[in-house]
Amino acid sequence: MPSIDLNADVGEGSFNSGTDSDAQLLPFVTSVNVACGFHAGSPGIIHQTVQRAAALGISIGAHPSYPDRAGFGRRFLDASPDEIYCDVLYQIGTVAAFCRAAGVPLRHVKPHGALYNHAATNSIAALAIVGAVRSYDPKLMLYAPPGSTLFQVAVSEGLCAIAEVFADRAINANGTLVSRGIPGAVLADPAAVARRAVRMVLEQRATAIDGTEVTMTGDTICLHGDALDATTRVQAVHVALEAAGITLAAPSST
Amino acid sequence: MPSIDLNADVGEGSFNSGTDSDAQLLPFVTSVNVACGFHAGSPGIIHQTVQRAAALGISIGAHPSYPDRAGFGRRFLDASPDEIYCDVLYQIGTVAAFCRAAGVPLRHVKPHGALYNHAATNSIAALAIVGAVRSYDPKLMLYAPPGSTLFQVAVSEGLCAIAEVFADRAINANGTLVSRGIPGAVLADPAAVARRAVRMVLEQRATAIDGTEVTMTGDTICLHGDALDATTRVQAVHVALEAAGITLAAPSST
Amino acid sequence: MPSIDLNADVGEGSFNSGTDSDAQLLPFVTSVNVACGFHAGSPGIIHQTVQRAAALGISIGAHPSYPDRAGFGRRFLDASPDEIYCDVLYQIGTVAAFCRAAGVPLRHVKPHGALYNHAATNSIAALAIVGAVRSYDPKLMLYAPPGSTLFQVAVSEGLCAIAEVFADRAINANGTLVSRGIPGAVLADPAAVARRAVRMVLEQRATAIDGTEVTMTGDTICLHGDALDATTRVQAVHVALEAAGITLAAPSST
Amino acid sequence: MPSIDLNADVGEGSFNSGTDSDAQLLPFVTSVNVACGFHAGSPGIIHQTVQRAAALGISIGAHPSYPDRAGFGRRFLDASPDEIYCDVLYQIGTVAAFCRAAGVPLRHVKPHGALYNHAATNSIAALAIVGAVRSYDPKLMLYAPPGSTLFQVAVSEGLCAIAEVFADRAINANGTLVSRGIPGAVLADPAAVARRAVRMVLEQRATAIDGTEVTMTGDTICLHGDALDATTRVQAVHVALEAAGITLAAPSST
Repeated sequence: MPSIDLNADVGEGSFNSGTDSDAQLLPFVTSVNVACGFHAGSPGIIHQTVQRAAALGISIGAHPSYPDRAGFGRRFLDASPDEIYCDVLYQIGTVAAFCRAAGVPLRHVKPHGALYNHAATNSIAALAIVGAVRSYDPKLMLYAPPGSTLFQVAVSEGLCAIAEVFADRAINANGTLVSRGIPGAVLADPAAVARRAVRMVLEQRATAIDGTEVTMTGDTICLHGDALDATTRVQAVHVALEAAGITLAAPSST
Repeated sequence: MPSIDLNADVGEGSFNSGTDSDAQLLPFVTSVNVACGFHAGSPGIIHQTVQRAAALGISIGAHPSYPDRAGFGRRFLDASPDEIYCDVLYQIGTVAAFCRAAGVPLRHVKPHGALYNHAATNSIAALAIVGAVRSYDPKLMLYAPPGSTLFQVAVSEGLCAIAEVFADRAINANGTLVSRGIPGAVLADPAAVARRAVRMVLEQRATAIDGTEVTMTGDTICLHGDALDATTRVQAVHVALEAAGITLAAPSST
Repeated sequence: MPSIDLNADVGEGSFNSGTDSDAQLLPFVTSVNVACGFHAGSPGIIHQTVQRAAALGISIGAHPSYPDRAGFGRRFLDASPDEIYCDVLYQIGTVAAFCRAAGVPLRHVKPHGALYNHAATNSIAALAIVGAVRSYDPKLMLYAPPGSTLFQVAVSEGLCAIAEVFADRAINANGTLVSRGIPGAVLADPAAVARRAVRMVLEQRATAIDGTEVTMTGDTICLHGDALDATTRVQAVHVALEAAGITLAAPSST
Repeated sequence: MPSIDLNADVGEGSFNSGTDSDAQLLPFVTSVNVACGFHAGSPGIIHQTVQRAAALGISIGAHPSYPDRAGFGRRFLDASPDEIYCDVLYQIGTVAAFCRAAGVPLRHVKPHGALYNHAATNSIAALAIVGAVRSYDPKLMLYAPPGSTLFQVAVSEGLCAIAEVFADRAINANGTLVSRGIPGAVLADPAAVARRAVRMVLEQRATAIDGTEVTMTGDTICLHGDALDATTRVQAVHVALEAAGITLAAPSST
């Protein structure tokens, strides 16, 4: 019976903004990546987020970033491998502490934004990230794009790598994501996103922006929670996957 | 045979300032309190500091602060108990992560600056700190002023509290520290500080600024490393204690 | 013909949160207080905010805070007068730079949150703030609670003080604001807030939470823009004031 | 009679580190670039630095950086032109405010570290910086490497560009600086640095690391103040220039 994980980036809001989409989102995902304070989040937000996820039995991961709150971690920063190693290890420690207080394990790490994109093709950054994860706990899983340098380095260094695909983003014929600046890069229609997710799991395929059929094998589907209608889309994916007989479950490193 | 711990606050310097007194200081202490990034420090500095301390077999603790880099954590901030709890837990997690990577245990927590002073007399803040420490690991020791609210709350909540005294600070007749603003508050002469430390251990007494003899029982003596001639003073204390037949050893929670 | 200023705190949102209530709010106010980056805001947000306000001919002020993003500037921080002076002067400079680039004057300063509240009763903090404002430009107006220490110090130091009252907050019989923690402290009903604003201007009176009639003379009415239905309330006040024949206009330092 | 400006980056230390080389350095330079808080510095440090420079009649400039305290502004950050524009304008405003309070003019801007290096060859970043300077005050001078993109863009946009050369750094045959990682990149011997400075002014030449003679025409010589023996070197340059009959004077935008 087919199975898939649904993950979302959480803990990126603000107590002061009066907006908190996490509460609506959490019931529909099976794992979450918690912001650690470097691109978003704070001790109080991590605390609340981990407690909510723990109460729902959702698998918890850390979501480390470049130190760039001003740019939400979306800008490349020319950090050295030592700096990346230390920044990632520091951030893993923060979410791990709240997991420990909540009596639940920290199960994975997913780099955020520009750090994720950089390590997808840069082996030096990938090694620094993987090194930090292994230093903390070699049983932690690492979410990474399938076929990426980050994925390969994780596997060769003995980590359990989890292939992450996106159901709400258009892809190019070579399987990479269409840049956000290009029209059609982000898929908004809940039904279309849901169909795409089901097809990714059952057929391991997706249609690229130019019509090409692309092989797309993932262990986890990322759904973005920061759009205004995110909840509708996440719920649609959740419902469609279950209706198609697909089991929703967090990945396991065994 | 009498025994005492010598502790110092470390990891508070900067890679850029060209000053790093920690390297000179470390050989003479038996435990260190590592800044976590809220009043000073950074992931890279924590990494370096923990590796140095681990290599020397020094007992490592976290040194959490109010979030106030601008004020070096020395200014009272009217944080709520929840905020204190979350800030302390977050900071414990950061140093713990680097300890884990270095294969050494995190052994204690010592609040920094204004947070330490506030919790010394405020039971709500003390409970928040103690709660964070217990949430992370109830076997962690907590350094606190002997007889303080923080000390008492730690004990009543089941933590191992370690009584911290100061050899390089003048005290009032009631045993509290003389405020830094008052002349004579900080003792500079290495020989005088060393004699004071020896007497604290062997006689459990110290002379207050008004000449009164005060009972002063401590498990650990804090030595400040941030003054220009700190190393001379720390070395003098170390040598004098050993010459007096006193064992220098980190505290133990058993 | 009676006249009043309507002011709002702006530039406190985030580009990333997807929420920006300022655009809806701006058409209904006559002056704005721009966050400077210490409790909220950023260079990019200040830029956008000043450009919007300039385009609408709205009077622009700086909204300096304690350096406390984690607490949104709402927590007392035991800063020295020198620290307050420097922090306020720094923040005035930031908004002034964007005003200069936009070809509009910076016209006033309104301290934010805990700094505003502290200076309302503490003459040392009030003097530090007033000193920073005067150092930058003695023609800048200072918004302050009528009758407060901050107001009095501003006047005695030669600044033009603008009395600020609140139409959406309940008051005690002595004219001070009811603490946010107390039920009924924040008035939500747009019609009630609008009536209250009109009465403040025409009768210079308001009803306290215990029913007492209180004299309430203000030069500017602050309306909070951070609640979900803030725009409705601000619009209601604007419409009601105009319907009552009251001129809406920014204050002037004549 | 030949004339040159001697500039130094200042306000980059810390009140807490106990090190402040600025006081020793200031008597020997004719202009300073004041850190604005993004890579180093703080409101209090800017205040003190501007007051000292004003008392000595030294020409004052702002030293804006990428927002990267963790990396001291030395790491490339992929910021957009709008972000660079806003960050630079914000930082100019901060130093300008303290100049205004001290009754002295802000006279120039010199970008810091990675931002300076990036704009030296990237016209988009250069335009963003130049745009921010012009928005604030088109009479502000801009310090830039002679022949660089930043220099050319400044001139073509109507700013007064000041050619900055380095007496304590080795150069390549094409006139660019030898990377800090390469042995011999930084010249330490005060006498050698002083001779080099004199020759730059009188002969407009310098010897490259490979022995080539390079034309080197500068309006200002930058001397680094962050090394341990910086003062000796700065003093040596100052004395040697005066002994050679060269006038030391800040540049003027006439």
